[in-house]
Amino acid sequence: MVRNPERRTALVDAAIEVLARDGARGLTFRAVDVAAGVPNGTASNYFANRDALLAQVTGQIHQRIAPDPAEVAEVMKAPPSRALVVELMGWINRRVAAQRTGYLAMLELRLEATRRPELQEELTRAIRETLDDDLRFHEEGGLPGDRTAVLLTYLAMTGLMLEQLTLPGVVPAEETDGLIAALVERTIGPSEG
Amino acid sequence: MVRNPERRTALVDAAIEVLARDGARGLTFRAVDVAAGVPNGTASNYFANRDALLAQVTGQIHQRIAPDPAEVAEVMKAPPSRALVVELMGWINRRVAAQRTGYLAMLELRLEATRRPELQEELTRAIRETLDDDLRFHEEGGLPGDRTAVLLTYLAMTGLMLEQLTLPGVVPAEETDGLIAALVERTIGPSEG
Repeated sequence: MVRNPERRTALVDAAIEVLARDGARGLTFRAVDVAAGVPNGTASNYFANRDALLAQVTGQIHQRIAPDPAEVAEVMKAPPSRALVVELMGWINRRVAAQRTGYLAMLELRLEATRRPELQEELTRAIRETLDDDLRFHEEGGLPGDRTAVLLTYLAMTGLMLEQLTLPGVVPAEETDGLIAALVERTIGPSEG
Repeated sequence: MVRNPERRTALVDAAIEVLARDGARGLTFRAVDVAAGVPNGTASNYFANRDALLAQVTGQIHQRIAPDPAEVAEVMKAPPSRALVVELMGWINRRVAAQRTGYLAMLELRLEATRRPELQEELTRAIRETLDDDLRFHEEGGLPGDRTAVLLTYLAMTGLMLEQLTLPGVVPAEETDGLIAALVERTIGPSEG
């Protein structure tokens, strides 16, 4: 296995582009080489097999779509109110549009995971970790809303992401902000914060 | 084009199985013929091209996953309460497990739609119609909860469906009933029904 880390990263990035564009079945070493603009045979020098490539894709997508910690710290300077939760959810929603390729590739990986138990195990661990981080972030930041509120918000934002990425006409963009505000308001409930 | 309606239906059903199993890129006339157990070349006698096949798949999946009207009428004999909305959502959630192939094929179609504007238009129309039917059903049945409640419930149920089909370990099955009850309770809010 060749050990040029920049090239490895560029190959995994190319794999993410191929996944988003052509789906999991289009993800071949040859397609990755073409997308990365490297000589045929390069990807196969970096990854023992397709599963090894998929394993690295999972981690690298998470890095691509994760928000910048400095930006998060900036947003979190505001008091921990409902308005701040609405702002955070609006921000996640805009990230789906800005990081469309990464989010689409993640959807393709989810479907590929229904056919590959090892990938399913790894993706489940990665997404469960992200969700646990969200729950901890919410609690430690003193944001209003219990664990159930965070989980319901996560599910509805996941549904909205699926609509926005695949069939943006189902829930019109002009309704999105109002729905996100109502989601936060109603899942937190009247009794808190 | 050959005109044997039963065989046409069987070919579209086989296409749904292929979509769920192999993804959109695996959906070829040859794969459909094999899955349907018919001679090679049969599917190409029934559909002018792959787009014509995909168009019929959309309608037929909707028929497969739609609940039986008689069953709906039976459930709707109960008074239009929050408990009934919880029961309806639990029922939808169990249908995702029971009709796994149809729902998975629909997710594959959604991703294929990101690459095919005509399919996207058709799927958007079909899913928007289903959502409008849900909104009308909710209102005409006198169920508690406003339009926003129905839309938020739809989004969260869509997120739950995606988790359940692709990464069932992220939201454990034993938490699902409690989350659905809380979703209905909170999106309807305290002031109604």
